[in-house]
Amino acid sequence: MNYASEVLRGNRLALARLLTQIENETPEGRAALAALYSHTGRAYRIGVTGAPGTGKSSLVNQLALHYRRAPGGGQRVAVVAVDPSSPFTGGAILGDRVRMRDLSGDQGVFIRSMASRGSLGGLAAATSGVVQALDAAGFEVILVETVGAGQAEVDIARLAHTTLVIEAPGLGDDIQAIKAGILEIADVLVINKADRPGVESTERALRSMLQLGHPTARVFQNHPRKPGHEVVEAPSAPPSTGEAPLWLPPILRTVATEGQGIAELAAAIEQHRQHLQASGELEQRELARLRAELELLLRETLVARWRARTPDERFAQALERIARRELSPWQAAEELAKEC
Amino acid sequence: MNYASEVLRGNRLALARLLTQIENETPEGRAALAALYSHTGRAYRIGVTGAPGTGKSSLVNQLALHYRRAPGGGQRVAVVAVDPSSPFTGGAILGDRVRMRDLSGDQGVFIRSMASRGSLGGLAAATSGVVQALDAAGFEVILVETVGAGQAEVDIARLAHTTLVIEAPGLGDDIQAIKAGILEIADVLVINKADRPGVESTERALRSMLQLGHPTARVFQNHPRKPGHEVVEAPSAPPSTGEAPLWLPPILRTVATEGQGIAELAAAIEQHRQHLQASGELEQRELARLRAELELLLRETLVARWRARTPDERFAQALERIARRELSPWQAAEELAKEC
Repeated sequence: MNYASEVLRGNRLALARLLTQIENETPEGRAALAALYSHTGRAYRIGVTGAPGTGKSSLVNQLALHYRRAPGGGQRVAVVAVDPSSPFTGGAILGDRVRMRDLSGDQGVFIRSMASRGSLGGLAAATSGVVQALDAAGFEVILVETVGAGQAEVDIARLAHTTLVIEAPGLGDDIQAIKAGILEIADVLVINKADRPGVESTERALRSMLQLGHPTARVFQNHPRKPGHEVVEAPSAPPSTGEAPLWLPPILRTVATEGQGIAELAAAIEQHRQHLQASGELEQRELARLRAELELLLRETLVARWRARTPDERFAQALERIARRELSPWQAAEELAKEC
Repeated sequence: MNYASEVLRGNRLALARLLTQIENETPEGRAALAALYSHTGRAYRIGVTGAPGTGKSSLVNQLALHYRRAPGGGQRVAVVAVDPSSPFTGGAILGDRVRMRDLSGDQGVFIRSMASRGSLGGLAAATSGVVQALDAAGFEVILVETVGAGQAEVDIARLAHTTLVIEAPGLGDDIQAIKAGILEIADVLVINKADRPGVESTERALRSMLQLGHPTARVFQNHPRKPGHEVVEAPSAPPSTGEAPLWLPPILRTVATEGQGIAELAAAIEQHRQHLQASGELEQRELARLRAELELLLRETLVARWRARTPDERFAQALERIARRELSPWQAAEELAKEC
């Protein structure tokens, strides 16, 4: 099958098969990506991350429905759900059943689940390839969802134009500690399940963490509270250096299962997109993303070339010498690398 | 300074400086590791992982004190606390203050905190180097503590002979979902803060997850319950194929802040060590660990060699062509790799 031309023709089955080829890192997958690459660059990529239990999947589902129903016929939407938390077991993940009910049968929606198979670098590279293929296939909005708060989320967030970090009330203060890192990648903060008790204290915690991150920011609040109603103002005395205006991540409230706050969330994403364009940051982010991706792929390629050129027994021999403590692992790695 | 000879003489300041060299991946650090490598292989490595809020740090602290006070003068103990969850900010982590209070001033204890600096592969390699140096320096027990439940924990768990996974009551059922993967690396399960409400349901959840993982296992319980009292029996009809006996992770209860259950935990670790030796698994794990480490270091070395040989502008040129969509990232990586 000529994957590239079939995908460009809108063949969904060919697209699904190509994504499998990309996940398995086959030569066919790479050839198709190379052929499709000039057709990419049109999709808007939205990253969605947050701890288990925050209702990410429902929220992604609702956002997808929102974009489908947009005035003027709606946009074509793809959802990529990545689970890097379970390195041992593949399989279906992340609320697929919910999605099936609301989104199945809609030709303007494409859903793909991906599970880690032991290599974070490999997962990030595969996710990037999958997103490229969906972009070339004409999906205008691509939602990339990850679970957790580790390096994988950060790597995958780098793929996105706008990154949403989802919280929920009542997940325990203990967990807050882990979130300091993940907050730094947030463009928009969402408190989902905002009809639950504890929403005020979750918001206070987020706001104080944001202020730690943006010490010059004054974050104002709106009353009375409704899901999605939130105003965040820029610092009253912004730095007058002619720099691009600072983006302060707004904090929004949603109840995804009721569809509350979704339109406001989509509006915040659109505001962020406009900010990226106006400030020139869109281009910078794109270059940073491509640089990270090229570094990752170069790394994978160098290893693959070494493997192809070096007899397997050389590795085994080096391993034996390390086990006998004749050679340190670093020394062995250097000896092996020289043979390339 | 000749790090290797100073470290072998017991110079703590030289050891601390060497660990910094290893973390920074300097040539001095690698040379010292090569010189020290023939002195490694004596330490018993214990991995400790679990979500934030489970009281891991207190537990590690108590275990360290336990080994220090062991009959016959106690063992020399090192603690390596790794935080891969915050890729952006370094700094002190993981209950260091608690440790300082109980362990500071004891020459038989060495404590080191490590934070990720953006690369998981780099962190795992650095942790392995730090553990090798501590092993060569004569620390007989090395406790490696990580926070979270992602790939980093799995990579770091591979360094350990015995891996403890720590839970605590009341952290929320939602979180359970993420733990399926991490349970698979557990040799001993610990419910810390076992004086809190919800301990029974946490234990039930762990037990049923364990049974999913070991479908032939029958896990028996002991009454009355005291922290640390727990009996896990092997399957009543073990496979009669002459295979090594199966290790079923026991579930222990501790209250680390009160020192409850610590002796029993140390006994379970010792039982696991004996199991590893008797079954021949100790050697297998060691080989698997060295293999993983050599692969990781080979990868890092290949990239470093490529960098040293290739002018920086070649990478920048490739990046520009990708940005103009003349070349796909995979194509560019292959072109660049060929120049090595």
